[in-house]
Amino acid sequence: MNDNLPKGFRLSAAGAGFRKAGRDDLGFVLSEVPAVTAGVFTTNAFKAAPVRVCMERLEQGIAARGVVVNAGQANACTGDKGREICMETLRKTGQALGVDETDILPMSTGVIGDQIPLDLWEKALPELAANLGRKNIEDFTRAMMTTDAFPKFGAREIRLSGGMARICGMAKGAGMICPNMATMLSVVLCDAEVAKEEWTEMFRRAVQNTFNRVSVDGDTSTNDTLLGLANGASGVKVADEEDKQALYEALEDILGKLAYMLVQDGEGASKVIKIEVRGAHSDADAELAARTMGHSQLVKTAMYGRDANWGRIVAALGRSGAHFAPGDVRVSLCGVELFRNEQPVGNDADKVLEGPLKERDLHVEVVIGEGPGQYILLASDLTHDYVTCNAAYRS
Amino acid sequence: MNDNLPKGFRLSAAGAGFRKAGRDDLGFVLSEVPAVTAGVFTTNAFKAAPVRVCMERLEQGIAARGVVVNAGQANACTGDKGREICMETLRKTGQALGVDETDILPMSTGVIGDQIPLDLWEKALPELAANLGRKNIEDFTRAMMTTDAFPKFGAREIRLSGGMARICGMAKGAGMICPNMATMLSVVLCDAEVAKEEWTEMFRRAVQNTFNRVSVDGDTSTNDTLLGLANGASGVKVADEEDKQALYEALEDILGKLAYMLVQDGEGASKVIKIEVRGAHSDADAELAARTMGHSQLVKTAMYGRDANWGRIVAALGRSGAHFAPGDVRVSLCGVELFRNEQPVGNDADKVLEGPLKERDLHVEVVIGEGPGQYILLASDLTHDYVTCNAAYRS
Repeated sequence: MNDNLPKGFRLSAAGAGFRKAGRDDLGFVLSEVPAVTAGVFTTNAFKAAPVRVCMERLEQGIAARGVVVNAGQANACTGDKGREICMETLRKTGQALGVDETDILPMSTGVIGDQIPLDLWEKALPELAANLGRKNIEDFTRAMMTTDAFPKFGAREIRLSGGMARICGMAKGAGMICPNMATMLSVVLCDAEVAKEEWTEMFRRAVQNTFNRVSVDGDTSTNDTLLGLANGASGVKVADEEDKQALYEALEDILGKLAYMLVQDGEGASKVIKIEVRGAHSDADAELAARTMGHSQLVKTAMYGRDANWGRIVAALGRSGAHFAPGDVRVSLCGVELFRNEQPVGNDADKVLEGPLKERDLHVEVVIGEGPGQYILLASDLTHDYVTCNAAYRS
Repeated sequence: MNDNLPKGFRLSAAGAGFRKAGRDDLGFVLSEVPAVTAGVFTTNAFKAAPVRVCMERLEQGIAARGVVVNAGQANACTGDKGREICMETLRKTGQALGVDETDILPMSTGVIGDQIPLDLWEKALPELAANLGRKNIEDFTRAMMTTDAFPKFGAREIRLSGGMARICGMAKGAGMICPNMATMLSVVLCDAEVAKEEWTEMFRRAVQNTFNRVSVDGDTSTNDTLLGLANGASGVKVADEEDKQALYEALEDILGKLAYMLVQDGEGASKVIKIEVRGAHSDADAELAARTMGHSQLVKTAMYGRDANWGRIVAALGRSGAHFAPGDVRVSLCGVELFRNEQPVGNDADKVLEGPLKERDLHVEVVIGEGPGQYILLASDLTHDYVTCNAAYRS
């Protein structure tokens, strides 16, 4: 059942009814031995209670044995009481699952400002304990979902010098999910043996190249959490530079696929728009330009409307604050150059692009000079369904 | 007919058919004498040809006698040819209206990348000349409109020490208007006699407090232009500090009302959201916080959905980058405090706010500390109609 799960991990899920009955909304990851643990968290000033607890425990050097996640309440903006409840859920879960409470990391997603109902949590613990090892990657991923349209996970092997290891990643969310469920949560499990500093450094790098390069709505949740547990259970060690590179590539591959799925499942999204900026003075300048275009409501609605409206792309670039000479700018959409030398190229963009703009994957390519700076952002489009989803009343 | 028009100005409008037949889309303002002229322009790097021409002429110290505006083509991203066409329209218009071409300032709004059809322009000039003095403020404003739902103008008297003077303002647009007509254009006419430096300085100040404090979609057009002509035709002089203050207040009042109307007529907008931030370290910090909340798709859709969803407001504030201690933050919606001490106030927000959230005007009040910094932003909501409007194919 868990063919793809890295060795030495067991998964569980149970239905607590935090928000809706008849579905799993409490999940647990057990590592049989203490795992080398890395974490990346939201930069939002209002960090949720579970985010703060994770950050403190990482700071103190935790080698995690468990991750517990609930969907329904984000436990964000819940004050001291929210923190107490978070600690209480760890105590009770640790007791039920036979893990020291201080070895568990918490993740929560759901409505901001609501307290987690402790009684529901407690009632679900026997089921969570009974299901340990009986749930697979998809089951666990589903227990994290709020209104995600599909579960997002991936797994693969890694060939290291000492043999084969496994890595898997599970994620939920995209922006602050409909109707106002918060958060991107993700857990990566790996059974290779890797040094903590290396694992942590790989995470930072891979996140920069994957999760930090997607945007659905430009909003940053109070709960975003990515945890990586490497427990060494495969017996295969990251022994040299080549192994490090192999593990890094597998990690970036997994996270890249999850990041793509987050955009694909963005609220109401019908398109995945790859916005590529090249030739900038610096990567930071390229990022600024890409984010301005990727967050532009006008660009996002044009892509939804299958409109080869390059004027909006150029206008967004023009207000981005990135450094460039207007005369150097070239804009292509789906491989067709549309704007150059401060004027339209003159092809019949509407006709040429009619077919390509019907595809799910669109490519906006913007060259702004001869510099070395570049950036790629994956953005969703802005659709009627997005508005329906987010304007719907919560209750 | 032109009771409200400041003295010494005459208005005209004509139908050229730049985009649609049967409506005026070419407008002209004549000042009988050279007017003290101020201008404020888009900060977009891709400035439209007419914007560049205006900026150069202001730089050279123009005392304008005319303003010509067309709706249909923005003359932005049109290269050297666009500039030539702009100059040619000034030549031909000057000839037809009996004004030296170098004394005219151009404004354009419409599709980016399309060239203005010179033949249509020329054909409309006899009508434009014949109508001079026969069109009123509303007629002229309508000739600037693209898909604005209503014309935006205002006029009032100003009591100065030497007698009464008049000021009027006319504006079009909000963001980059549906289906992709660009631009905010505005002309202010005043018959007081005022020194150029004072007039210019007043404009800069008033724009900061009005037009620069509204947001529909966060996008900055390539064509935004505000021109102010003061021709002194009332014979009433701005003689002392008190007069300066009176004129400034009238100017800010007019621009403030136009700015409100721009948001009210924002693409698909159903709400005008006043976002007020107080207690910040600096005005800049307050502005950063207000803009992040006002541009948040999640906040904008919640307001559209009449959802007292303060969690989205707090989450947007938290990612804004403004400096504050989370524990100091207090959030109110329509006068009802919802969030304080990092937790919900605990009133039944949904019930209490059910009525107020049905109103057109909503007030988001966010106190983030004890500092002197403050900022007010007027933002529209994000609606189904916004998406319909902007996803609609251009042609």
